[in-house]
Amino acid sequence: MSRLRWGLLSTARINERIIDAVHRSDRSELVAVASRDAQRAKAYAERHDSPSSYGTYEELANSSEVDAVYISLPNHLHAEWAVRLCEAGKHVLCEKPLTLSLVNVDRMAQAAQEAGVVLQEASATRFHRQTSDIAQIVSSGRLGRIVFCHATFEFTLPAVADIRLNTDMGGGAMWDVGCYPVAFFQAVLRENPISAYARAVIGPTGIDLAFSGFLGYESGTAVQFTVSMATPMARSARIVGELGSLELDQPWLTNMGAPTTVRQQLMRSAAGAGTFGDDPDQLEVSTWDYGPSDVYFDEVRGFEELVLDGAQSPCTLSDSRMNVQVIMALHEAARTGREVSIGSPSPAYGQP
Amino acid sequence: MSRLRWGLLSTARINERIIDAVHRSDRSELVAVASRDAQRAKAYAERHDSPSSYGTYEELANSSEVDAVYISLPNHLHAEWAVRLCEAGKHVLCEKPLTLSLVNVDRMAQAAQEAGVVLQEASATRFHRQTSDIAQIVSSGRLGRIVFCHATFEFTLPAVADIRLNTDMGGGAMWDVGCYPVAFFQAVLRENPISAYARAVIGPTGIDLAFSGFLGYESGTAVQFTVSMATPMARSARIVGELGSLELDQPWLTNMGAPTTVRQQLMRSAAGAGTFGDDPDQLEVSTWDYGPSDVYFDEVRGFEELVLDGAQSPCTLSDSRMNVQVIMALHEAARTGREVSIGSPSPAYGQP
Repeated sequence: MSRLRWGLLSTARINERIIDAVHRSDRSELVAVASRDAQRAKAYAERHDSPSSYGTYEELANSSEVDAVYISLPNHLHAEWAVRLCEAGKHVLCEKPLTLSLVNVDRMAQAAQEAGVVLQEASATRFHRQTSDIAQIVSSGRLGRIVFCHATFEFTLPAVADIRLNTDMGGGAMWDVGCYPVAFFQAVLRENPISAYARAVIGPTGIDLAFSGFLGYESGTAVQFTVSMATPMARSARIVGELGSLELDQPWLTNMGAPTTVRQQLMRSAAGAGTFGDDPDQLEVSTWDYGPSDVYFDEVRGFEELVLDGAQSPCTLSDSRMNVQVIMALHEAARTGREVSIGSPSPAYGQP
Repeated sequence: MSRLRWGLLSTARINERIIDAVHRSDRSELVAVASRDAQRAKAYAERHDSPSSYGTYEELANSSEVDAVYISLPNHLHAEWAVRLCEAGKHVLCEKPLTLSLVNVDRMAQAAQEAGVVLQEASATRFHRQTSDIAQIVSSGRLGRIVFCHATFEFTLPAVADIRLNTDMGGGAMWDVGCYPVAFFQAVLRENPISAYARAVIGPTGIDLAFSGFLGYESGTAVQFTVSMATPMARSARIVGELGSLELDQPWLTNMGAPTTVRQQLMRSAAGAGTFGDDPDQLEVSTWDYGPSDVYFDEVRGFEELVLDGAQSPCTLSDSRMNVQVIMALHEAARTGREVSIGSPSPAYGQP
């Protein structure tokens, strides 16, 4: 196979970013769209230059025209359809969060393994070079031992009828955007958290409109973050070690087409950067840019490499499983007002 | 009395900021310095234009030349000397944290009340107009309900022999700089936290070199902060409401002589600032500056107003008591790995 023939499962708004990336890539093409409504599927296919359309998800799963399916269904439907598609021999790129329970991650992973297909969480941030560069800086020891991390991903959801306000569908700020900091710090710290603490602001529909999380690590690192669907837009990440720090203005890279900047501060001497009120010149400050980000293009290109070239995933199913485990612990912490222990990771899944 | 005659109890480094402010003010003058070493006291007095010097703290307490004493002793000695000075009829400005236990706050407050003198915690940040302006914006409702707050106060302590590394003397990052965010959010939120959670990085001497705190409020507000004596210098504060946010580049105002900036983001419409990836123009951004800060001058001027004009304190002894209560709860949380309930505030103390 030298080209991936893509099908889209659902007509969600997020599709447009993937469609654009598929159209731009010379190793991918859009061939089919499925919706529960045949008319809507047809109109959507025409609008987005897709030759085929299906009025049921089953038809997409059974189509011999399709190699890979992008799942952008509501969170609570990811597992069922990922399993069905894997069983039908399709490679699957599934929107984050992969699913809402560990049992479902295991079912999905097993289905992919048995069918010998690639199942990949659409953890777009992890396919961009910025993320792997940060992970490299942290593991190089340049910043010293990591003491603090902090991140924000906050926005305001205008539509009251949005599915992200529905508890039964895996709604809430933590599942929707909280998965970004959880996956990011897993990627850059290369260490699993051992404890979770949290507080949530619960909205009228019973979901968390705003969520403050706190993750503890065996090494002593402490991660604090806030995510929200009910406050003004804000995005940031900060990683602080004993010898230096990094600040990212766009850690999630979801600001399509805008450049991203990393700011690094390093101590000039190991003796320390002075006591408070002292000269900030004792810190060596540098910044670098990544140019206009298109993380969805990176994600599609990355998926092509997984399927067509047999590359290693930057975000394995074991990573995705740990993300689900951490988010569940955070939710339990918010519900109980207690620190919750995060269990050990599962043994690594086999990957095709 | 139209002028305050000041004595200094100790020759700590922080004195220099107060001495400078006293010299600049036309309602204050420096008249005496006390050290446990008469020679050192004398040399220090000469160097700082102080007419008198004493080789014991007792002599300063008993001096009829002195109206007010600035205590810059190590934290564990604050209570003993504040009580002695109040009993001797001196007004007292005592470095933060006021003391290390609630019993001692109560002893100090009682001594001040019985002697009819002013006892004031040197919570310098609270005497600057920036802090009261922020409190005013928050209480005006302009930002909507406050959802998140976050702050940092981090620096590197180069000297291993520093008293701030001594457990018995009330050392550690939380007592030394953690009192800034605790006092600040108390001032601007005008609500006492009800729960504390924390993790600390404990250094070889047994004190917290780095401390991550999390305070919960009845209203749903969540405050996260990090303080440190073992990472590069960083200072920030952020207050996020449903309708807008504020960012302060110098919330603690301890960067002598540098201007400070507040950045405000407000939503253009109550309908929301859009979903993620949307146009940042939907936020109305404004900034304002306070010009070069000199918060120690503000503190000295504020103390003059308390003593000479009978003004109300922006940080009462009840506020100081709540700060101690919150810091103790945070320490307990760090020690136990559990959320700790913060008790009710004490009834307000009488103020002279």
